[in-house]
Amino acid sequence: MRYFDDFKVGEKLPLAPCTITRDEMIAFAAEFDPQPFHLDEAAAAHTLLGGLAASGWHTCAIFMRMMCDGWLNDTASMGSPGIEAVRWLHPVRAGDRLSGLSEVIDLRPSKSRPDLGVINLRHIVENGRGVAVLDMINPIMIKRREDARP
Amino acid sequence: MRYFDDFKVGEKLPLAPCTITRDEMIAFAAEFDPQPFHLDEAAAAHTLLGGLAASGWHTCAIFMRMMCDGWLNDTASMGSPGIEAVRWLHPVRAGDRLSGLSEVIDLRPSKSRPDLGVINLRHIVENGRGVAVLDMINPIMIKRREDARP
Repeated sequence: MRYFDDFKVGEKLPLAPCTITRDEMIAFAAEFDPQPFHLDEAAAAHTLLGGLAASGWHTCAIFMRMMCDGWLNDTASMGSPGIEAVRWLHPVRAGDRLSGLSEVIDLRPSKSRPDLGVINLRHIVENGRGVAVLDMINPIMIKRREDARP
Repeated sequence: MRYFDDFKVGEKLPLAPCTITRDEMIAFAAEFDPQPFHLDEAAAAHTLLGGLAASGWHTCAIFMRMMCDGWLNDTASMGSPGIEAVRWLHPVRAGDRLSGLSEVIDLRPSKSRPDLGVINLRHIVENGRGVAVLDMINPIMIKRREDARP
């Protein structure tokens, strides 16, 4: 188990790769984001997305699983207060093999909670053809080691 | 169908209410965000969340459906480039009846695409007890009326 005090600025943490299927894309969109360009090839063809593409929220949800499996579930995470920015840079297509990494861009001990610190991360997800599809800035709260607390 | 030119700054658009169930919360977390405080009451009890709570990404996905059903699917939406900020303000619990609104905070015709404009929105979701659980700033691209294009 890794704690706040074990992370370093500049460290790059791999996300676990994941392939997104057409059936999963359409099922997620039907439940949460029923816009034509996430549901139907023909309707999507003449939109800005240029063809069927995953809901951006589906890409975020898959990213979350990639982070859990890649490194977060071996970390004493206490959750996240939110996201500073999400950019959906490129459409995610059926069959895309997503991979990426989280880079530690800032480390800050909590002022109010001596048992916690916040690491700020930049997450980048690529589509298997070297094209970035998701770019996100996201703080995560992590427990401190007992012997490192102020 | 509403177009970019039909929106006004300050306009408030209702989200369709939605109740989140315990089974849905746990199923979403098991698939996308398998952290103990999203999966198990006992494991969640002594965390910052103070009990089982929905994945923040699940709250975002449900918000998206509430927006589609509330107003977006009657709008000539072309999708969104991303999110400027997401704040998960308060834990979402099993059985919470979520409701809220989207407020138009800015309107900007596209410089590069005369057929499009971007409306920037602030979305607020509450939990049925008057407590805000999600606060988000999010631009959405919308088609312009043909007779309003430059």
